[in-house]
Amino acid sequence: MSVLSDRIAGCLDSASLVRKMFEEGARLRAEFGADDVCDFSLGNPHLEPPSEFKDQLRELATDPAPGAHRYMHTSGYPHAREAVACSVSQREGVEVPSSHVVMATGAACGLNIVLHALLNPGEEVIILAPIFPEYRFYIFHSGGECRIVPSKPDFDIDLEALAEAISEKTRAIIINSPHNPTGRVYPEESIDGLTKLLKEKSDELGRPIVLIADEPYRRLVYDGVEVAPVLPRYESTILVASFSKDLGLAGERIGYVAAHPSFPTELIEGISFCLRTLGFVNAPGLMQRVIAEVMDASVDLPAYKHNRDLFYEGLTEIGYEVVKPEGAFYLFPKTPLEDDRVFCKRLMNERVLAVPGSGFAAPGHMRISYAVKPEVIEKALPRFKTAFENP
Amino acid sequence: MSVLSDRIAGCLDSASLVRKMFEEGARLRAEFGADDVCDFSLGNPHLEPPSEFKDQLRELATDPAPGAHRYMHTSGYPHAREAVACSVSQREGVEVPSSHVVMATGAACGLNIVLHALLNPGEEVIILAPIFPEYRFYIFHSGGECRIVPSKPDFDIDLEALAEAISEKTRAIIINSPHNPTGRVYPEESIDGLTKLLKEKSDELGRPIVLIADEPYRRLVYDGVEVAPVLPRYESTILVASFSKDLGLAGERIGYVAAHPSFPTELIEGISFCLRTLGFVNAPGLMQRVIAEVMDASVDLPAYKHNRDLFYEGLTEIGYEVVKPEGAFYLFPKTPLEDDRVFCKRLMNERVLAVPGSGFAAPGHMRISYAVKPEVIEKALPRFKTAFENP
Repeated sequence: MSVLSDRIAGCLDSASLVRKMFEEGARLRAEFGADDVCDFSLGNPHLEPPSEFKDQLRELATDPAPGAHRYMHTSGYPHAREAVACSVSQREGVEVPSSHVVMATGAACGLNIVLHALLNPGEEVIILAPIFPEYRFYIFHSGGECRIVPSKPDFDIDLEALAEAISEKTRAIIINSPHNPTGRVYPEESIDGLTKLLKEKSDELGRPIVLIADEPYRRLVYDGVEVAPVLPRYESTILVASFSKDLGLAGERIGYVAAHPSFPTELIEGISFCLRTLGFVNAPGLMQRVIAEVMDASVDLPAYKHNRDLFYEGLTEIGYEVVKPEGAFYLFPKTPLEDDRVFCKRLMNERVLAVPGSGFAAPGHMRISYAVKPEVIEKALPRFKTAFENP
Repeated sequence: MSVLSDRIAGCLDSASLVRKMFEEGARLRAEFGADDVCDFSLGNPHLEPPSEFKDQLRELATDPAPGAHRYMHTSGYPHAREAVACSVSQREGVEVPSSHVVMATGAACGLNIVLHALLNPGEEVIILAPIFPEYRFYIFHSGGECRIVPSKPDFDIDLEALAEAISEKTRAIIINSPHNPTGRVYPEESIDGLTKLLKEKSDELGRPIVLIADEPYRRLVYDGVEVAPVLPRYESTILVASFSKDLGLAGERIGYVAAHPSFPTELIEGISFCLRTLGFVNAPGLMQRVIAEVMDASVDLPAYKHNRDLFYEGLTEIGYEVVKPEGAFYLFPKTPLEDDRVFCKRLMNERVLAVPGSGFAAPGHMRISYAVKPEVIEKALPRFKTAFENP
């Protein structure tokens, strides 16, 4: 008998494939040396935080003012919430008051507390395939059910499939643009179509379907692409974001939730309640104070674009079929073999790690993270070629 | 219709009494000035982190080594887990390997991830009254049921009541020593009796009842009192702790879970899985690195003892009936009126804030936090006297 609850033991079983891959990666590194293994399996931003962050951290670390490490209001320091509210309002073109901002312990925290606040047992949350697999667990913990809806072949939203999937059980939909694992940025027309559809369906249902826009990659876009703001298009929108990627702070767990001003403050109270009682209590204090001052700084974005171009062009030239990503730091090519797991194993023989698309509910693909040094990409391309030619 | 889930809307309703008190406190401060209001309602440690912490934070903040703010292993930095394992092993007299330590985002996080990992829906967790009220929500989120068992009049564990409460549904019991809200430290004999009882009951049930020792106040003890270690007495023990109180880092959210070495690693995997998928992802990285180096430092503990003595003696002299607290920073006197809410309102008229015992499942009492400057206690004592004499 497992010491764990049946549910969690079951989750561990289902997660064992990915774990096995990581173990295999560790084995490869041990056998061939870390430098010889090209690891594209992790979404761990490798770019360093900008100098503005480092300066601010140094300043606050040497600030002798008392009280800096105590509890603050659950929703966060007023000046940090205010700074987020300003930034979001400007970006979205909708005035979001600081009362509608909750500082969160990263975006994963933000999603969990929002889902916990919203979901009655059994209510459905729609997510779009290829999915970010962690969503399933966030929805599971919140007592909801996960409904996966396929996207178009170019990873744009399939509005027809979505319209069919919405039912009386639908409580919310999560979108993620720029998108993990595909790097897709939804075009403005798609966001228009999506919000129009949600309005119609909400009217039919007599209650709003909540649109949760998970935007940790919001500022990681290339070639002048813009992420269409959702708030001005749909009132029942909740934004969730983090500073993990644009400031390179993944390990520090700092982000926020910002709700459309039309929501009653009861929503914010419920989200804050979940922040507190799920054990986050409040977002880490020091990081709140740092990011409040450096929110507009960013990691060296051109480095990501350079990697994308290098990798996309290299793979395309070899013959891989890849939708050109417009943001984030992922490529999601088709695998030359239909069975993505077999092909990823084939790549492993070349000491290249990529994640099978099956893990993202998109078999026949693989996820490649280019949050790595360009040398790793250069070293890997000939290996991708070998595997492509002899799959 | 509420925008929130029925469950969370219900929780907010039940929490509204405490919120009302906070609002009343804010009103008093606005009317009479913050300096004239004696606020003993919050467990927000007011002592500053020790100089060792500040030095270490400064050093790491100026360290130019790359990679310091990235994701690390879910369970935490190896050297931080190792430092915790050493400290726990030494304190408990049981060798806990670092494999059995998970760095947590504070103790509230630690409790949530442990409960989520353990509980099947409907299984019971026993907590002892006076309770730490947040436990109810942690258990609720984990899908379990909360079973409250009364303590003895001196707040020691009532083993008979406990024996009666244990049933086939019992999955775990949470103890908290030093205790919030009473400041009680369970004597060694009580821990002996408790662990003996749990062994017998586990044998009867044919599966272990897990003992969760929530120890955020472990090092806040006075007059040479020692907290009896639980690990050597009972194998199915999981320790949960934080650095919020002994290092004064409540706002930074850093703590840990340490499980008895007899647990299979599956338990740790399950707890780490919950850490990841409830959205904590990993404990804040910078704080992990800081506390790994300064774990043995501490806030100015004699200041808490001074406050306790001042407050305990003052209240006793007035005539209040108080069990002398041996640790933490709370007093839990009987209220001169049977109705603790009415008496706390009476105190409010004297511009003194204390929390009614009803909120801790212990009516007829009130919780007083002495994590304040001694001047506040000195100012408050005559007011406590007035309220006592004219309740």
